Amino acid sequence: MKSSLGQSVNISITGESHGEALVAVLSGLTPGIKVDRDYIRHCLSQRAPVGKISTPRKEADDFEILSGVFEGFTTGTPITILIRNTNTKSKDYSEMQTTARPGHADFTAEMKYHGFQDFRGGGHFSGRITAVLVAAGAIARLALKNKGIEIGTHILKCGGVSDRNFIDINEDIKSLNNKYFAVLDEKSAQAMQDSILEASRQGDSVGGVLETAVVGLPAGLGEPWFDSMESVLSHFLFSIPGVKGVEFGEGFALADMKGSEVNGSLKVVKGKIIPVNDLSGGINGGITNGDTLKFRCAVRPTPTIFKEQNTVDIKSLENKTLCAKGRHDPAIVHRVRAVVDSAVALVLCDMLAQRFGTDWALEVK
Amino acid sequence: MKSSLGQSVNISITGESHGEALVAVLSGLTPGIKVDRDYIRHCLSQRAPVGKISTPRKEADDFEILSGVFEGFTTGTPITILIRNTNTKSKDYSEMQTTARPGHADFTAEMKYHGFQDFRGGGHFSGRITAVLVAAGAIARLALKNKGIEIGTHILKCGGVSDRNFIDINEDIKSLNNKYFAVLDEKSAQAMQDSILEASRQGDSVGGVLETAVVGLPAGLGEPWFDSMESVLSHFLFSIPGVKGVEFGEGFALADMKGSEVNGSLKVVKGKIIPVNDLSGGINGGITNGDTLKFRCAVRPTPTIFKEQNTVDIKSLENKTLCAKGRHDPAIVHRVRAVVDSAVALVLCDMLAQRFGTDWALEVK
Amino acid sequence: MKSSLGQSVNISITGESHGEALVAVLSGLTPGIKVDRDYIRHCLSQRAPVGKISTPRKEADDFEILSGVFEGFTTGTPITILIRNTNTKSKDYSEMQTTARPGHADFTAEMKYHGFQDFRGGGHFSGRITAVLVAAGAIARLALKNKGIEIGTHILKCGGVSDRNFIDINEDIKSLNNKYFAVLDEKSAQAMQDSILEASRQGDSVGGVLETAVVGLPAGLGEPWFDSMESVLSHFLFSIPGVKGVEFGEGFALADMKGSEVNGSLKVVKGKIIPVNDLSGGINGGITNGDTLKFRCAVRPTPTIFKEQNTVDIKSLENKTLCAKGRHDPAIVHRVRAVVDSAVALVLCDMLAQRFGTDWALEVK
Amino acid sequence: MKSSLGQSVNISITGESHGEALVAVLSGLTPGIKVDRDYIRHCLSQRAPVGKISTPRKEADDFEILSGVFEGFTTGTPITILIRNTNTKSKDYSEMQTTARPGHADFTAEMKYHGFQDFRGGGHFSGRITAVLVAAGAIARLALKNKGIEIGTHILKCGGVSDRNFIDINEDIKSLNNKYFAVLDEKSAQAMQDSILEASRQGDSVGGVLETAVVGLPAGLGEPWFDSMESVLSHFLFSIPGVKGVEFGEGFALADMKGSEVNGSLKVVKGKIIPVNDLSGGINGGITNGDTLKFRCAVRPTPTIFKEQNTVDIKSLENKTLCAKGRHDPAIVHRVRAVVDSAVALVLCDMLAQRFGTDWALEVK
Repeated sequence: MKSSLGQSVNISITGESHGEALVAVLSGLTPGIKVDRDYIRHCLSQRAPVGKISTPRKEADDFEILSGVFEGFTTGTPITILIRNTNTKSKDYSEMQTTARPGHADFTAEMKYHGFQDFRGGGHFSGRITAVLVAAGAIARLALKNKGIEIGTHILKCGGVSDRNFIDINEDIKSLNNKYFAVLDEKSAQAMQDSILEASRQGDSVGGVLETAVVGLPAGLGEPWFDSMESVLSHFLFSIPGVKGVEFGEGFALADMKGSEVNGSLKVVKGKIIPVNDLSGGINGGITNGDTLKFRCAVRPTPTIFKEQNTVDIKSLENKTLCAKGRHDPAIVHRVRAVVDSAVALVLCDMLAQRFGTDWALEVK
Repeated sequence: MKSSLGQSVNISITGESHGEALVAVLSGLTPGIKVDRDYIRHCLSQRAPVGKISTPRKEADDFEILSGVFEGFTTGTPITILIRNTNTKSKDYSEMQTTARPGHADFTAEMKYHGFQDFRGGGHFSGRITAVLVAAGAIARLALKNKGIEIGTHILKCGGVSDRNFIDINEDIKSLNNKYFAVLDEKSAQAMQDSILEASRQGDSVGGVLETAVVGLPAGLGEPWFDSMESVLSHFLFSIPGVKGVEFGEGFALADMKGSEVNGSLKVVKGKIIPVNDLSGGINGGITNGDTLKFRCAVRPTPTIFKEQNTVDIKSLENKTLCAKGRHDPAIVHRVRAVVDSAVALVLCDMLAQRFGTDWALEVK
Repeated sequence: MKSSLGQSVNISITGESHGEALVAVLSGLTPGIKVDRDYIRHCLSQRAPVGKISTPRKEADDFEILSGVFEGFTTGTPITILIRNTNTKSKDYSEMQTTARPGHADFTAEMKYHGFQDFRGGGHFSGRITAVLVAAGAIARLALKNKGIEIGTHILKCGGVSDRNFIDINEDIKSLNNKYFAVLDEKSAQAMQDSILEASRQGDSVGGVLETAVVGLPAGLGEPWFDSMESVLSHFLFSIPGVKGVEFGEGFALADMKGSEVNGSLKVVKGKIIPVNDLSGGINGGITNGDTLKFRCAVRPTPTIFKEQNTVDIKSLENKTLCAKGRHDPAIVHRVRAVVDSAVALVLCDMLAQRFGTDWALEVK
Repeated sequence: MKSSLGQSVNISITGESHGEALVAVLSGLTPGIKVDRDYIRHCLSQRAPVGKISTPRKEADDFEILSGVFEGFTTGTPITILIRNTNTKSKDYSEMQTTARPGHADFTAEMKYHGFQDFRGGGHFSGRITAVLVAAGAIARLALKNKGIEIGTHILKCGGVSDRNFIDINEDIKSLNNKYFAVLDEKSAQAMQDSILEASRQGDSVGGVLETAVVGLPAGLGEPWFDSMESVLSHFLFSIPGVKGVEFGEGFALADMKGSEVNGSLKVVKGKIIPVNDLSGGINGGITNGDTLKFRCAVRPTPTIFKEQNTVDIKSLENKTLCAKGRHDPAIVHRVRAVVDSAVALVLCDMLAQRFGTDWALEVK
């Protein structure tokens, strides 16, 4: 199914950057989850563009829950979230209608949809659509919180600047969830933002790396083949615009290590088996081992830039140059962070429902 | 569905390392594909362990096609491939039955299957199962060849040694497909194998990185959300045992670049739009752009090693140490290469069938 | 996935009888289908309650298309349809909140959703939700019309009265699509409506049988196993509230016939193979044979009636009696007809897209 | 996915009537189900042809379990069942290769597979394939028995003769499961078999109706939309060759009743809510109500008959006549009974796993 993901818990997202509205349908979530609208707003604020490091297009992101929540709790039937687009300036795009932005989906959309696609602002491909995904993910996170599962993502790298690694995982996650620009070391925040602003001044853009940790997950989630935890997570993560790499645990660095360095060990603590110093990100054989789940996403620099680029007119098939207009982000990595948090929450709810049934997160009324 | 992947073209794999047999079911493939059994044997030989750089367990991998092929051609109904296990020495594992190997699935399988799993040689988690996957993938590759689509994978890194990059993509793919130890620069082959043997002597193991290129793909495959080409490929790739990282194009390196360096440009050549110097691996907005598809997989060092490790007895819950016995690979990256080739072939057949219908690869009888 | 159906073309529906709104997401439809809003309104009007034979709750059913349609054509990305609920009188239900209506979903919803379900007017179980399904189905029917495929359903039986059978299939379908109360013989319309009104006066309800014909379908749609045309159609039809039986061709009557009576014959006409007098409804071996597709649905009498019934209070677990209040239909079979037409259209679009790819219905702009 | 069904518990079946072998893959079943091979043989014997009322083709149906069962219990990973074909007389079919049997899939297979299908004995369309489906279903029934759920099917009608209705449901189910020709009233058995033999003497075939009851199911299984219990069951049932009608409870007869006759009532018995005299087959709003699940399947007369029929040569496109050769069943309804029992078992395991998680049927080792 298109624009939809998940087996037992499923998310569908619809809408276009400059269309009427964005809609998410979240189905299969346990009945009885208390829906905290302030928390949804809080998560949306972490995705919203703020200051000069983001697009000047500001949207209120007022959401309406059209179904699936009754008297403040999830009903167990599909939840529909609606966000109207308000601040659309489509005329910025009229000149770009037929001029494909290099690195963007303009050309590939034409090849797939034969000119019928809504080209304004990237249409259905736009990162704008992630607003409803974040709102839905916020509800999924509330379900996880019922079971003591917490997610935190920080900007490990941006514009050539690195953040520190996780140290006290629970404290670090807590501190990240209160921050808009999510770094563990505040000094790197300033350096990263300087780097973004410098790129912005040049009409250019920068990328980055996000690192995510999840605590409180039970061992035993995932499948040996095809629906390994890595497979299902990466499937979702790679659908977030701009993500071009995903690695679990030490990921690509593992390729340069020895088995004896990577394996870590197992230990019995208070009658429970605990993995120690395992560098594989909390997943062995595709299945969670009860350790902190850890992964990283590489986010490419935003393709829409103000520098002159060589490109083509997709209708007349003539070569031409383009200096993009409109409102664009010199970096999206800090905003993608809220999307990654939501993505992992949605995936984990799905895996938990497959494993433990539809009532896994039930809170007694 | 468990141990199964794909929407229009689907693969299921079953079996255990030391069980009776391995079975793959490949469904949804176009009728009329000529099934070349020598080609299947050729692909299987690239996955087979050879020499001292692999496990001493040698299997004939004689396959039987039980259904779906009639008079030498695919029928369009499900293809069943059977490979019997013959060279099983389960007693090597009897001591390890309850001793979990760190980094392996022994502990997580226990958490998921409550002791009912076939623990011998990793059971259903074993890389052994990939034999039937490679056989099925070989048939998928024959379908792709009907449409001029070719796949090649090389060992970009192994045991600290690097191969050269792709230069002449068509020639490089051709040369790789004739090699067992798939490197572009033969000098690196020797250095890599020395590195593997050295690790083997130490009772240890090494990892590596594989790089894959696909030529001949049409533009327009993939979806904007959730079934992006990256999503669907990574879903399959991350289910291959040992894969812990996947990146498209320049992947994690993109995080350190500027948009102007990454985007490349578009150009009209002979009435057709061609991407030039786009570093995103042939995919924009989740959809193929007609350029060479390029991605890399990080393969962790094999977890089963002969060095002493701290671990637990999963039944008695006692701490203990383990020196693995049995027949194990000091490196699997060179064997995983054939699995990656098959994986990408299966995914691409699925995407092509979704886009162009069930007859997309039909060859007239 | 919950409240969602279809593989290549998929429909999701959300909302509750007395909630904010109903939403349908239709994904996977070919780009370039011209969206005729008057036709959607026409289809909705055939589902709307009219006169005394239906519920007095009248809804404007004004729909908004929030995504997936651009400049009057489908884009190929998900289409979102929104219908606000306006005429809700939830207080009629306040007494019934904990009193389960026999034959209705009140009790089973409680068993599944543990009291968190929206109980007002049947909540997510209500036939009200079919309004957006009909709107989505109307767009699917427009796609089918591009390929010359037409659907018609008549009320074969209602309240003990029978309609005549199909005679001139093309003319009959055309005439049905212009009627609100869809019978082929106008005399039976009056008798059926008298029967409904009589039941209504008694505080009771009646059921009926719908018969559907589809012309213009190509041979070769469906699968030998599990996704037989009968399987996929019945899956959808049995999710329409009130449908308790589905039969293809002569269906249950076939059980009393001989093979020689049922088989019919095959004949070559103008170089094309044509089935003649085959009583299996245009499907052999699960696959369409190019003949008219024919099936029937049994619709049970509406469970909500005004007669006194023995039931229970699902909270206090006390036996009690119930005389339903609120606004209810003494018959729904004439309204279900529009839902069946939409259901079959959605299923056929899915089957055609699987067979011929995503562009199967493309109309050049 | 083709030839595969089920979300959490999934069955795939492969093979052809005169091919090498039949294979079923059953995935997602709870680990720890004790696999009783005698019970599987018992179920297979109820599908096997016996005496003159069935085809003279006798197959040993010796099955091999290739994976997923270890030390006598299910492991939780995919179970593979292999049955070799032994008694194949393909030359009976050589004349029929290009002569399509009216009412059979020969013509529709040609339209779908373009001549590449295995035409011998109906190939992948053959009822022969149901042998592995019955074996897999037997394991599913063992899982259900762990939870006290029992299934029984009888031949309600065959060749114009009717069986009595269910009276003592538990006793009736028990008696049916010990019978090959499954009727409740032994007198009807003789009359039905006489009717089959008479049709056989005429070179003709007869159909029938099967009625199934399931006891022990919990309330709360199924979904409001699209995955209603009726939808999911009918999806499977309509993929059984020959099934052309499915009805739940009183089904088509409900169309002639009043709501007050159909609804029944609800009653509290020992603190539990119990439906009484509800004629809807144990399902309200798509969800089980805890009452006996009841449905009926109409089975058409076998299309392959020995009488002369008008048909065509699908290669030369010439009109011709056909008197079928080979070994064929004058009736299949008594054999389909075992397939229906297996089908419903597989569907229920899937619904239970979705509702209660993967361990729903776990038996402690």
